[in-house]
Amino acid sequence: MTGESRAQGFPALWGEIAEIGRTAGGGYLRYALTEPDLTLRDWFRIQAHRRDMPVTDDGNGNLFAWWGDQWGRGAVLTGSHFDSVPHGGGYDGPLGIVSGFLAVDRLRAAGHAPRSPLAVVAFAEEEGGRFGLPCLGSRLLAGAIEPAVAAALTDRDGVTFGEALGGLPAGPLPGLKDRVKALVELHIEQGRQLEVPVGVASAIWPHGRWRFDFTGHGDHAGTTRMADRRDPMLTFAYTVLAANEEARLTGAHATMARVEAEPNATNAIPSLVRGWLDARAADPATMDALVEVVVKRATERAGRDGTEVVVTPESLSAEVTFDTALAGRIAELLGGAPILPTGAGHDAGVLSAHVPTAMLFVRNPTGISHSPAEHAEDADCEAGVEALATVLGELT
Amino acid sequence: MTGESRAQGFPALWGEIAEIGRTAGGGYLRYALTEPDLTLRDWFRIQAHRRDMPVTDDGNGNLFAWWGDQWGRGAVLTGSHFDSVPHGGGYDGPLGIVSGFLAVDRLRAAGHAPRSPLAVVAFAEEEGGRFGLPCLGSRLLAGAIEPAVAAALTDRDGVTFGEALGGLPAGPLPGLKDRVKALVELHIEQGRQLEVPVGVASAIWPHGRWRFDFTGHGDHAGTTRMADRRDPMLTFAYTVLAANEEARLTGAHATMARVEAEPNATNAIPSLVRGWLDARAADPATMDALVEVVVKRATERAGRDGTEVVVTPESLSAEVTFDTALAGRIAELLGGAPILPTGAGHDAGVLSAHVPTAMLFVRNPTGISHSPAEHAEDADCEAGVEALATVLGELT
Repeated sequence: MTGESRAQGFPALWGEIAEIGRTAGGGYLRYALTEPDLTLRDWFRIQAHRRDMPVTDDGNGNLFAWWGDQWGRGAVLTGSHFDSVPHGGGYDGPLGIVSGFLAVDRLRAAGHAPRSPLAVVAFAEEEGGRFGLPCLGSRLLAGAIEPAVAAALTDRDGVTFGEALGGLPAGPLPGLKDRVKALVELHIEQGRQLEVPVGVASAIWPHGRWRFDFTGHGDHAGTTRMADRRDPMLTFAYTVLAANEEARLTGAHATMARVEAEPNATNAIPSLVRGWLDARAADPATMDALVEVVVKRATERAGRDGTEVVVTPESLSAEVTFDTALAGRIAELLGGAPILPTGAGHDAGVLSAHVPTAMLFVRNPTGISHSPAEHAEDADCEAGVEALATVLGELT
Repeated sequence: MTGESRAQGFPALWGEIAEIGRTAGGGYLRYALTEPDLTLRDWFRIQAHRRDMPVTDDGNGNLFAWWGDQWGRGAVLTGSHFDSVPHGGGYDGPLGIVSGFLAVDRLRAAGHAPRSPLAVVAFAEEEGGRFGLPCLGSRLLAGAIEPAVAAALTDRDGVTFGEALGGLPAGPLPGLKDRVKALVELHIEQGRQLEVPVGVASAIWPHGRWRFDFTGHGDHAGTTRMADRRDPMLTFAYTVLAANEEARLTGAHATMARVEAEPNATNAIPSLVRGWLDARAADPATMDALVEVVVKRATERAGRDGTEVVVTPESLSAEVTFDTALAGRIAELLGGAPILPTGAGHDAGVLSAHVPTAMLFVRNPTGISHSPAEHAEDADCEAGVEALATVLGELT
């Protein structure tokens, strides 16, 4: 493959979406099925149309642009998601979709004649930033969540996923295993682990989200004696620090990054503080033990604070080991690309339980992600496109 | 004074406003100059009209219903505020206004002929729940804040106080000291200090609000190594616990009840966490020392977390000692009512620097305030009206 006959390089196509959903702070607000995401989905349809790739919608919010038979046997999928965490970076997700279209361009420019159908995919609500459950689109496609359950998930304004989608999700695609022979998701790397432009994923750490509802007694902050208080903010604060300590002790990752207090007024002791724990580890036993200790410490502290804590798991993603043979074959194809695990969840992780799945990572020089400072160099993104085209050419 | 000729008892008049701004959880959303507060202000005008009391507006959002010359020399004011903390109780504020109108009824029924003008007052934005600065209306009336500064204060939606008011506040009333010879504010007690129906205030603890901006590095919660993090939620959590500890050690009150995180997403380490400290103590030295230690401990912890903290005082209310002679005279009038201090700020506290000021407290059986559970018995509220009528009758 050479660059000579390329219609468009990475920076030009990337530039088309760079301002969609961008905020003054440089980060993105691209919540699933809100206006910026809908604009990106329109852009997807335009890109597909330009390339004579018919678009199908699986009824779960996921879009597919086809080169070859739609849902023919043994298709190869490539793509990622458009939605962002609030004020996140622009690469996490969209890089995989843009790279998919550019890889198609390269294959065509090189005269590739695919023997299998190939689709560029845009998965819906991967971050869980709007409806709370990450990888919602891929979970529905894979049958990993009931359509009615997904439809009832609500955003912060009380809008349900079903309302945003315009109806009940279609649910799993019949015969998914036969129809798809491989999924290759390209994604920006999110640690600081990759020292060459492109790597291959080995595994995703098991991870999950737990909601902690700390309840106490709402009261006047000025007049209530310290000894009479039942202040759930104290229990929350203790739990934030406990989660951090336990993660450091066990080599796991634990974060409490989201908080809501009621009434959230300066002069009123809260009646309720809600905090969310994000926990991940290299193996499920470590993660489970971590969460257990954090819950235990929170409960003990609640006893001392006169508060109560109720813990609700909101999502759980089992450990994913990507198809080892496929990862090895890809690494070899790419001239010995490094194979590395990640702590981040992905649609490819959800689908790996159903179809052979692989991921390509593009170098992230600072490791920063879920932040406006997330960045990849154009040259590394070009190398990612090149690698993806090579892999898709081999698989189709 | 007897109850025989009363047009209306406490429960009937109280019932007229009980549902205004009430939420499903039983608490009230009566932010200053929002729809529920405007409805209460209309109700105030109707009550005044029913009693042939002309209403004046001082241009600062404060309403006055007059019995006698408007702003004549040596007027006596009584009243409180309509606005609530979010999801607060119904008594904190409105009890003083309702009791003011009922006291006028009792004085008239008893044939009282006032020698001085008397006004029932509704002060604006006492809680600071909407624009962040408590006692905004009384501060403006007293000249304790520049009108332009008050006008520029913004609510959470970016609406300024000036916009909500419909223009620049009028500022201090010329000749306030000559025009007002006494202010008597009746209020529900907010501790658990009063064992008889009615008491008299001696003092208000010095108190203030400080905003803590904790900044760190936004990053991916799943992939960022614990050692590489600069997570401001940790510094916030530590500061919450430190403020509580220091208050317990010094006999002061300290609360961090309001928090905002950015981006406030489960899977993104925040770049910014904002927390507000409410601190109060029996004397200014104790309060200042408390805040100093909390800031010091927060700053030290920020050094360990790799974060930064900037502290901004948002309001400061000096210690208030109410007019000792007036309090003694009132306590005696009421047959030896107890005299007690409070940790809560009040419009009467602001005005006490300018005119002789007193407060009556109505018993609060649980001490709970700033919560839907705030409550006073009807019989105690009736006793409050009776006491207020006695005091106003004596003063006018």
